[in-house]
Amino acid sequence: KGRLINLPSIAVIPGDGIGPEVVNEGLKIFNYFNNEYNLNFKFEEFNLGAKRYLKNGELIPESILKKLETFDAIYLGAVGDPQVPAGILEHGILLKLRFHFDQYVNLRPIKLLNNRFSPLKNKGVEEINFTVVRENTEGLYAGIGGFLKKGTADEVAIQEMVSTRKGVERIIRYAFEYANKTNGKVTLCDKSNVLTYSHNLWLRVFEEVKTEYPNIKTDHYYVDAITMKMVRNPELFDVIVTCNMFGDIITDLGAELQGGMGLAASANINPDTVSMFEPIHGSAPDIAGKGIANPIAAILAVSMMLEYFHRDDLSEKIENAIKIIIEENKLTPDMGGKLTTQEVGDEILKVLKRG
Amino acid sequence: KGRLINLPSIAVIPGDGIGPEVVNEGLKIFNYFNNEYNLNFKFEEFNLGAKRYLKNGELIPESILKKLETFDAIYLGAVGDPQVPAGILEHGILLKLRFHFDQYVNLRPIKLLNNRFSPLKNKGVEEINFTVVRENTEGLYAGIGGFLKKGTADEVAIQEMVSTRKGVERIIRYAFEYANKTNGKVTLCDKSNVLTYSHNLWLRVFEEVKTEYPNIKTDHYYVDAITMKMVRNPELFDVIVTCNMFGDIITDLGAELQGGMGLAASANINPDTVSMFEPIHGSAPDIAGKGIANPIAAILAVSMMLEYFHRDDLSEKIENAIKIIIEENKLTPDMGGKLTTQEVGDEILKVLKRG
Ligand SMILES: CC(C)[C@H](C(=O)O)[C@@H](O)C(=O)O
Ligand SMILES: CC(C)[C@H](C(=O)O)[C@@H](O)C(=O)O
Repeated sequence: KGRLINLPSIAVIPGDGIGPEVVNEGLKIFNYFNNEYNLNFKFEEFNLGAKRYLKNGELIPESILKKLETFDAIYLGAVGDPQVPAGILEHGILLKLRFHFDQYVNLRPIKLLNNRFSPLKNKGVEEINFTVVRENTEGLYAGIGGFLKKGTADEVAIQEMVSTRKGVERIIRYAFEYANKTNGKVTLCDKSNVLTYSHNLWLRVFEEVKTEYPNIKTDHYYVDAITMKMVRNPELFDVIVTCNMFGDIITDLGAELQGGMGLAASANINPDTVSMFEPIHGSAPDIAGKGIANPIAAILAVSMMLEYFHRDDLSEKIENAIKIIIEENKLTPDMGGKLTTQEVGDEILKVLKRG
Repeated sequence: KGRLINLPSIAVIPGDGIGPEVVNEGLKIFNYFNNEYNLNFKFEEFNLGAKRYLKNGELIPESILKKLETFDAIYLGAVGDPQVPAGILEHGILLKLRFHFDQYVNLRPIKLLNNRFSPLKNKGVEEINFTVVRENTEGLYAGIGGFLKKGTADEVAIQEMVSTRKGVERIIRYAFEYANKTNGKVTLCDKSNVLTYSHNLWLRVFEEVKTEYPNIKTDHYYVDAITMKMVRNPELFDVIVTCNMFGDIITDLGAELQGGMGLAASANINPDTVSMFEPIHGSAPDIAGKGIANPIAAILAVSMMLEYFHRDDLSEKIENAIKIIIEENKLTPDMGGKLTTQEVGDEILKVLKRG
């Protein structure tokens, strides 16, 4: 599912707000592995985000985009700044990279690492452990639509949810391949009873692809029902495959189930181009520069990146180290701890070095 | 917000599965009030649903639709049957009525009645108490779209999210009027950073309408963030206004927060035509006929209907009676009780009669 590469090269985009702070900690871990296991990962930093945009209106200059194409992966902090109107950096950088590199898989593990972070009364680490495979290049995110009679009382605004057979099939197939590693289950999350065009295609393709995987169990929930089930019976799920918009919604709900934004990472994958790994939180301008940002999500993004490069062993080491510092409450204030961003990174490193 | 009417007439559509069972209990309560307070409500039953459809392919015959137009409200149980392909009864009856009567408000109170039903560790009746105002006649539910090269490898499916100034404005205005009764807060839930056409209209209209209500506080969350906040900080919300699709999703999540489907009712409102009141659960064919369906949601739908007809006093009486039988655990098995559907209705009636 990932890539086996000699001398992998990683483009680092620290971004805005707390982005650089948490990415620093991620790189600290990465560098440790790099030396300890002779990984030979190479890093190069790119300054994209609010600063560049506010200075000269640039989002991703063509020359940088071309340069990024030569890398094996991107490690992204976060973009977004109160001085820039909402949407501009998200579109110009985050979505731009997802679309430019056709990163069709948005992979989001929903895994609770410690019972005390579960918001749910009766559900803990045993129950909250599944993965959402979100389509990442089409649907309502196509950016297609328009206005009629804009600004008048008769205005009509249209936003198109565009789904292609190719786009739907490759993401559903990815979900089945992913579940196949563990003989797991694939759940389709759609609203095919109402979205009788776009999600009818999803349903048809799902039914077709599943016949190729007779050993994989499947089921199907409408998106409204799935939000209920995620709260009431999260243990029902193993791999959920869904469209771009619904994936956006249910993965944030999922992040909350695993303890909140501070603990949630995501991978934007296309094994044939350049994949991108990021914490799912934003740039959090309100706490930027204070040294209290939680670096765990960014470090989990490194863990996902190592898995992508077939180093599941190292990925597991990171997860285990994080579990240990959580148990010892060596955490930032948002998680009830007293440490700084850097101290949390150092503690994780200490556990890793202890082996 | 509702209607004051002489001799109100209610069309009753019990529907499929557990629909008739729970509607019976709702009517039991209604009849009691009718006699006790000389309300003079008149009822007439309409047989729509799977039976009729399977017999002669009819969903809502034109003659019945015309007849329904003469009523002041509709009381709906549930539609849906395993013998009928998914979507047909939902479209042909539920959505058909919402659209035919232009019931542009889908009003869904999210109110936890007893702490023991909260799925959340630290949130109870104080925190889980808000209302979702869902647009109910347009957006992704417009049913507009199509296929190109259907069934081939090159297939493209398009589903249109259609929003009109009129449709968006009236629902946002409704939310502000609703919040105005309590000097509350209105939260816009959209995805305007990505849906730059349809939800740009929402955002513009929201900004405009809010200037007319200077005493009403407002805020704004993207739909993904709102699912997190609903789980982490439900106390943040008072009135949430949102589009049809997002409303569908977040109200199911909300139903779970208030204790599940068995406790959630909804009103489909257009004060100028015919409004419709329903439990939000489905026909639950697996438990139909066993006498164990939970009638509380259907009875709460009656409570919403009475409020609509300006009998807030009676609506409150119902809610209080339900709170009492919950405390006494006089409930159906799904809520941890041992009573039948009818027994729960009888218990509520007993409390009401006690006064
Ligand atoms: C920032 C935003 C455009 C983005 C999305 O909607 O995909 C974010 O919410 C995410 O899920 O990564
Ligand atoms: C049955 C279905 C068409 C309906 C909807 O999507 O609106 C239901 O989920 C609801 O919310 O009332």
